[in-house]
Amino acid sequence: MNPFEEPASTREEILGAAYRALSTHGYAELTIDKIGEEFDKSASLIYHHYDGKDDLLLACLDFMLDRYKRDPLTEEYSGPRAAIEGVCERVLLADASTDHQQFIRTLIELRAQTPHDSDYREHFTRSDRVFRSHLAAIVEAGIEQGEFRAVDPDRTAVMLQVFLSGVFLIYVTSDDDEWMADARAELEAYLDARLYV
Amino acid sequence: MNPFEEPASTREEILGAAYRALSTHGYAELTIDKIGEEFDKSASLIYHHYDGKDDLLLACLDFMLDRYKRDPLTEEYSGPRAAIEGVCERVLLADASTDHQQFIRTLIELRAQTPHDSDYREHFTRSDRVFRSHLAAIVEAGIEQGEFRAVDPDRTAVMLQVFLSGVFLIYVTSDDDEWMADARAELEAYLDARLYV
Repeated sequence: MNPFEEPASTREEILGAAYRALSTHGYAELTIDKIGEEFDKSASLIYHHYDGKDDLLLACLDFMLDRYKRDPLTEEYSGPRAAIEGVCERVLLADASTDHQQFIRTLIELRAQTPHDSDYREHFTRSDRVFRSHLAAIVEAGIEQGEFRAVDPDRTAVMLQVFLSGVFLIYVTSDDDEWMADARAELEAYLDARLYV
Repeated sequence: MNPFEEPASTREEILGAAYRALSTHGYAELTIDKIGEEFDKSASLIYHHYDGKDDLLLACLDFMLDRYKRDPLTEEYSGPRAAIEGVCERVLLADASTDHQQFIRTLIELRAQTPHDSDYREHFTRSDRVFRSHLAAIVEAGIEQGEFRAVDPDRTAVMLQVFLSGVFLIYVTSDDDEWMADARAELEAYLDARLYV
């Protein structure tokens, strides 16, 4: 699940250090020096490769998106229905690892940069499209394999994306998680009513 | 819809100035001096009343939440179904006024402060609960009046809140709005399948 586990180059080592530093410190507190602390080689190498914090973070986001495009992690599931359930579960399980939560929290912070920074906006526009079309492809496969009804895959995909993004947003920015069980139950009811055969 | 239209005190005038400055400049760029530019009286009055930008913004958010609690804007609708449709429409209409969009954008920025600032987190936890219980009350009324099925109001409320929050997040942080029509159609299909009689 962590695309930085086996870095293939110095560049990937730097991106991994940026990911770890971002998860630890959050966006606002992050500096290139803090990224350097997560990096085994000289921090001057980071300055050599990247123009600054945002340049590096955008490269890190792009790298993660490319890895996701190559390996969307849904191959591990036994079929389209299991894949949809798995994607939802990954978001809705309140006992998700703290590291992962911290990273999602940081994604919200990075999304909050979009009003001022068109590079971030361009990235999130692109990554939203990738996730959406990936979800639509799973729905399409489920229809072909007879697990799902003959729905419009794009519509189901956007519903899931919007719902899961809303869960992320509320979950990481409030102290409350009592609502999560209701959200999960109602999502299942929606999938039963609209998608599953 | 704007709770700052008829300020009843200097304090409310300051909160209105903070709201306007926040909508214009966004969170990161905002200073007390910029709020002063939106304020008819001396900016020193702002420093007299508030300890800083965050103290003032939190007071502004609390004031808006109190106004919303007193007048949730759904009285204007002819019944529970019209109220649910109205709330969804306000979020899903891509031609919403630019001011309102800018304010929502800013709310995402303020939510992004929650990892570092427990006062913001406390506020959003509280405001999420207020909106959720308000939505649940509408659903409950609709069940009583025979417009809705005998669903669990809390579950429907959380689904709507999560969905609308997800729409906000994606809409204001990406350049894309083609997905909006699909989101709207699928939300209607969900409401038809699960809520409306």
